[in-house]
Amino acid sequence: MLSFESDYTEGAHESIIRRLAQTNLEQTPGYGLDPYSESAKDKIRQTFGIPEADVFFLVGGTQTNSTVIASMLRDYEGVIAVRTGHIGVHESGAVEYTGHKVLTLPDHDGKMDAGELEDYLKAFYADGTYEHMVIPGMVYISFPTEYGTIYSKAELEAIHSVCQSYSMPLFVDGARLGYGLMSEANDIDVKELPKLCDVFYVGGTKVGALFGEAVVFPKGNAPAHFFTTIKQHGALMAKGRMLGLQFDTLFTDGLYFKIARHADEMASRLKGIFLEKGYEIFIDSPTNQQFFVMTRGRAAELHTKVRFEDWCPVDEDRIAVRFVTSWATPEENVQALRDIL
Amino acid sequence: MLSFESDYTEGAHESIIRRLAQTNLEQTPGYGLDPYSESAKDKIRQTFGIPEADVFFLVGGTQTNSTVIASMLRDYEGVIAVRTGHIGVHESGAVEYTGHKVLTLPDHDGKMDAGELEDYLKAFYADGTYEHMVIPGMVYISFPTEYGTIYSKAELEAIHSVCQSYSMPLFVDGARLGYGLMSEANDIDVKELPKLCDVFYVGGTKVGALFGEAVVFPKGNAPAHFFTTIKQHGALMAKGRMLGLQFDTLFTDGLYFKIARHADEMASRLKGIFLEKGYEIFIDSPTNQQFFVMTRGRAAELHTKVRFEDWCPVDEDRIAVRFVTSWATPEENVQALRDIL
Amino acid sequence: MLSFESDYTEGAHESIIRRLAQTNLEQTPGYGLDPYSESAKDKIRQTFGIPEADVFFLVGGTQTNSTVIASMLRDYEGVIAVRTGHIGVHESGAVEYTGHKVLTLPDHDGKMDAGELEDYLKAFYADGTYEHMVIPGMVYISFPTEYGTIYSKAELEAIHSVCQSYSMPLFVDGARLGYGLMSEANDIDVKELPKLCDVFYVGGTKVGALFGEAVVFPKGNAPAHFFTTIKQHGALMAKGRMLGLQFDTLFTDGLYFKIARHADEMASRLKGIFLEKGYEIFIDSPTNQQFFVMTRGRAAELHTKVRFEDWCPVDEDRIAVRFVTSWATPEENVQALRDIL
Amino acid sequence: MLSFESDYTEGAHESIIRRLAQTNLEQTPGYGLDPYSESAKDKIRQTFGIPEADVFFLVGGTQTNSTVIASMLRDYEGVIAVRTGHIGVHESGAVEYTGHKVLTLPDHDGKMDAGELEDYLKAFYADGTYEHMVIPGMVYISFPTEYGTIYSKAELEAIHSVCQSYSMPLFVDGARLGYGLMSEANDIDVKELPKLCDVFYVGGTKVGALFGEAVVFPKGNAPAHFFTTIKQHGALMAKGRMLGLQFDTLFTDGLYFKIARHADEMASRLKGIFLEKGYEIFIDSPTNQQFFVMTRGRAAELHTKVRFEDWCPVDEDRIAVRFVTSWATPEENVQALRDIL
Repeated sequence: MLSFESDYTEGAHESIIRRLAQTNLEQTPGYGLDPYSESAKDKIRQTFGIPEADVFFLVGGTQTNSTVIASMLRDYEGVIAVRTGHIGVHESGAVEYTGHKVLTLPDHDGKMDAGELEDYLKAFYADGTYEHMVIPGMVYISFPTEYGTIYSKAELEAIHSVCQSYSMPLFVDGARLGYGLMSEANDIDVKELPKLCDVFYVGGTKVGALFGEAVVFPKGNAPAHFFTTIKQHGALMAKGRMLGLQFDTLFTDGLYFKIARHADEMASRLKGIFLEKGYEIFIDSPTNQQFFVMTRGRAAELHTKVRFEDWCPVDEDRIAVRFVTSWATPEENVQALRDIL
Repeated sequence: MLSFESDYTEGAHESIIRRLAQTNLEQTPGYGLDPYSESAKDKIRQTFGIPEADVFFLVGGTQTNSTVIASMLRDYEGVIAVRTGHIGVHESGAVEYTGHKVLTLPDHDGKMDAGELEDYLKAFYADGTYEHMVIPGMVYISFPTEYGTIYSKAELEAIHSVCQSYSMPLFVDGARLGYGLMSEANDIDVKELPKLCDVFYVGGTKVGALFGEAVVFPKGNAPAHFFTTIKQHGALMAKGRMLGLQFDTLFTDGLYFKIARHADEMASRLKGIFLEKGYEIFIDSPTNQQFFVMTRGRAAELHTKVRFEDWCPVDEDRIAVRFVTSWATPEENVQALRDIL
Repeated sequence: MLSFESDYTEGAHESIIRRLAQTNLEQTPGYGLDPYSESAKDKIRQTFGIPEADVFFLVGGTQTNSTVIASMLRDYEGVIAVRTGHIGVHESGAVEYTGHKVLTLPDHDGKMDAGELEDYLKAFYADGTYEHMVIPGMVYISFPTEYGTIYSKAELEAIHSVCQSYSMPLFVDGARLGYGLMSEANDIDVKELPKLCDVFYVGGTKVGALFGEAVVFPKGNAPAHFFTTIKQHGALMAKGRMLGLQFDTLFTDGLYFKIARHADEMASRLKGIFLEKGYEIFIDSPTNQQFFVMTRGRAAELHTKVRFEDWCPVDEDRIAVRFVTSWATPEENVQALRDIL
Repeated sequence: MLSFESDYTEGAHESIIRRLAQTNLEQTPGYGLDPYSESAKDKIRQTFGIPEADVFFLVGGTQTNSTVIASMLRDYEGVIAVRTGHIGVHESGAVEYTGHKVLTLPDHDGKMDAGELEDYLKAFYADGTYEHMVIPGMVYISFPTEYGTIYSKAELEAIHSVCQSYSMPLFVDGARLGYGLMSEANDIDVKELPKLCDVFYVGGTKVGALFGEAVVFPKGNAPAHFFTTIKQHGALMAKGRMLGLQFDTLFTDGLYFKIARHADEMASRLKGIFLEKGYEIFIDSPTNQQFFVMTRGRAAELHTKVRFEDWCPVDEDRIAVRFVTSWATPEENVQALRDIL
């Protein structure tokens, strides 16, 4: 059945599969100490214009979030995120499991507001009892957010500036980074992003790889012994070249961005079809996740013909639904959806 | 350069690569809820003769160890392992990171002795202050051990029996399970193993897969919400079918055991060559890891021609070295090693 | 200076000091295995009508909360509390430090609403992705709440009933239990309370003791090895009889309740004075914490004459303030406050 | 019955009880922000000759150990201790509960050997796989040790020097510090101790107080937000002046050292009696804990007349036993023991 359920329903870009096959019987050292991983790191450094960056490859998003966050916080610190942030909702408490509280701010279509962040911090330190509370130690945002929305350059600068004035690192969850950077609505250059945060990751799992997230500390600012930390979190891959090879492929000739742009285009086309068919937009996303409102009856009927996710209730009769495109979505699938709608 | 450094230097068995390519653009649900994962689980249940077993796929060994151990212990409990057990040495404290102490017993060429285990437990509960100590909550052993040795059926039964009399689960780390079960020295049948422990895993990473460990609760005795626990540990793969597909392939037509037997045969031949060349055996292993003694000078010289691991010092002049074969070791490599030696 | 800052500004009831002095050089076993602790446990069992209860003495409130909560949750579970619950605000993340998320509901003057609790749980289990979230494992409420308010019997029954239908224990933080039970507004009998929850504690620190909280598992339902858990949390007192002796004194001839009633009476008188002087009540509390609204200027002025806590901003000009009475508040202090106001 | 079971069988020095009574109804701010705590801190700074020191008061030893250790380690680090160190044996895994491994070295009558420490560290960093292990992050020793033995100045300097060359803090558990410093065998001056470590604590619980341990960071080197860390560990006392008052009393006119010296003298006399009666010494301790060898039969018989601890088996027939004196041991008790022996 046709599926727009998520951006991790297929395998990997064919050039990744091809290289996996070609290199399969080569013998390389484990744990990422292989030439493919080195090459991939270099290409990422070049792409983002950060020659001094530390780059590490981990396997999945939740793992990456909890490993990075725990490595950058002291025991008494928590991480600030919006109410809808992935770390606070759909990661089974992985951050708390490492001993840290997720401190929540309101979201605006999934985004954090720099003003609200600053107000929160001012109020926190103005409170005479703050030493009895969890000290805010870093800020977590996703780009794009869980709602497909993206920060403008001005918005990101404002958040980063607040972080800097409180000496807190800003962490950008880029599980869908490509879809954000390639969005028509995006005004942040690939080489600007690393200047606007302290650590980010380049999502592979949802953007063309079988799995893999590339964590980037742009200023060479990886915490000491980060390799050991990865191992301690169970996040170190024995056959580390599987990660290196994939990112090396994705960052050769701009493949990562090319396939991300394709997904955004498919999403834009899909949105056009929904609008044309008279559906209401739930949240206006410029990336590969699209949210619409429909009656429960209509959703149930559609579920018999196409896979997608029921997102949340809107009112008694209606729900929000999510349709997702990806690097792998063929045009004919979007066309087929039009026929169904 | 020729390498006998480890059993995770190559990719995966070619039939796995082939199927990854064939199924690459299929769309399946994530998180292991796909038909390949279901099929793989069934085949594992059949192979081990445990129709009611719970089976879960995780990515790597350290991750699997800490997830399984934490899920089966209460906060006040620790896990008993021998001094050389992987969890206590080379996992960067992943078990302690989940809050649990590794309680150590002496090892005998990597193995736990049932009598010593029983003595430890008797002495523990005879100590009037035991409520001030860490309560032993489970037993961890590896099969084969970190030294390539394996437990006889009688030895495993004895350990299991002690565990049962203290109501503690026995956990078998099977990162190299195939190499143990296919050893000529092994007297434990594939269908007997699940009766002699409470949870074990079938290592894929070191036995033919790109990555992956299949955790098996033989009596359907998985802890409640184990899926959530996997996610919380950052061990849940989004594209879970990558794991299902690999294990489905490995457990079709006995491939897993066939390639494991090959590795053991290559190891046996390799051992013969070392003996023939007059080297002393450090630990007599009947599986794919082989340990020999040589002078530091000889080791240094060999390192220029072949990759292997320096294991530990033996005396002033000599060290123990480790040579490892795998599912992927071609006969000609063993032959080439003979020429070098 | 006159102080209504908190209910832990003085030492202990004089009869406690007297007995500490009298018994000072007796030699007793440590860790609560002394006759005073046994006697105190018996008196608590009798007072609350629960002969089969398990009783343990810990030192302070935050310690008690995190020890009890961690002991009753499995790793994948979180604890539900209202937004203003002490564990989620003023305990420096002690619960998260043990690996558990505090799941928050809205508060109503500090109280949880049974209907909202049920709606939350229904929605949780109706969400197809709930296995990716933190599983709710217990409910935490305070009696009285952080705002001095108390649950009616009907309200507590309703919450307990929801807990039971989801097989979750209900934990009552009784740091100020005496002040709640002795409130004129309270309709819950001392012997009814243990039937309406699964674990509660009797606060000593704020009700007449130097320190100490008595944790009660009414049905003999203490988690296995709770003694070891207390030790592991650093909450086991070497000279445990200090705790036993204090609770034995407080639960002799109803002293605990007598001194609590006194505090409530002083609070009631204090409230009368504020109303008489034309102040607005911020939250209407029937226990020993009283909350009023005043201008920032008036508050600043008062701070020069009497100690009290600025609670939170109300609007641009006004703030809420807290005045607290205790077992130790003499009538003349209330009278002195009247003169100041 | 006569008891030499431990040094925490009595209450507190009478002058502490007296001051508790005298100050009982004073109103002071909570959490150690009172004048008594300030005064006690100053006296400790003066006594140890460290005007710039940070001083904090916690309640008990296990709590202090796990709070200090966790606060000074990064997540990937463990703490080195000898096999018999209190943190690795009788603290119910409190250190592991905070996520850190206790790395063990052999003990020599309870003491760590600087040479063995250095060898361990050299071997660790020489091991090519050390990044897969727990990184040693601090060293923990007790003074006196769990066997009553003490380090000479030269021994302590040697350990400290190794710590410094590896940039690791040295933590001295001083639960019985007074008994160590006042020992006739001790050659470390009170003002030298703070120069030979990075953090230590002055045990109150076992040396004259009802409870309480004073943590001292001699160079003002307390970790950031240590107050919050104490709270997070459930170790912050609401009525903090109880701690301040006790240490203020103990550090007035050298009371702490005077009562410690008394205990050592009583221990010395007690040892003389055992020797005179022909008992064999098990471990030769110059402080308040004394260890002798006797037959199981003799021990059983003695248990009917005096309380003491069976320490460990020596051989089939004999065990080691522990007799402990304290600040509170009257001479007549030692005399009474002579009559029994």
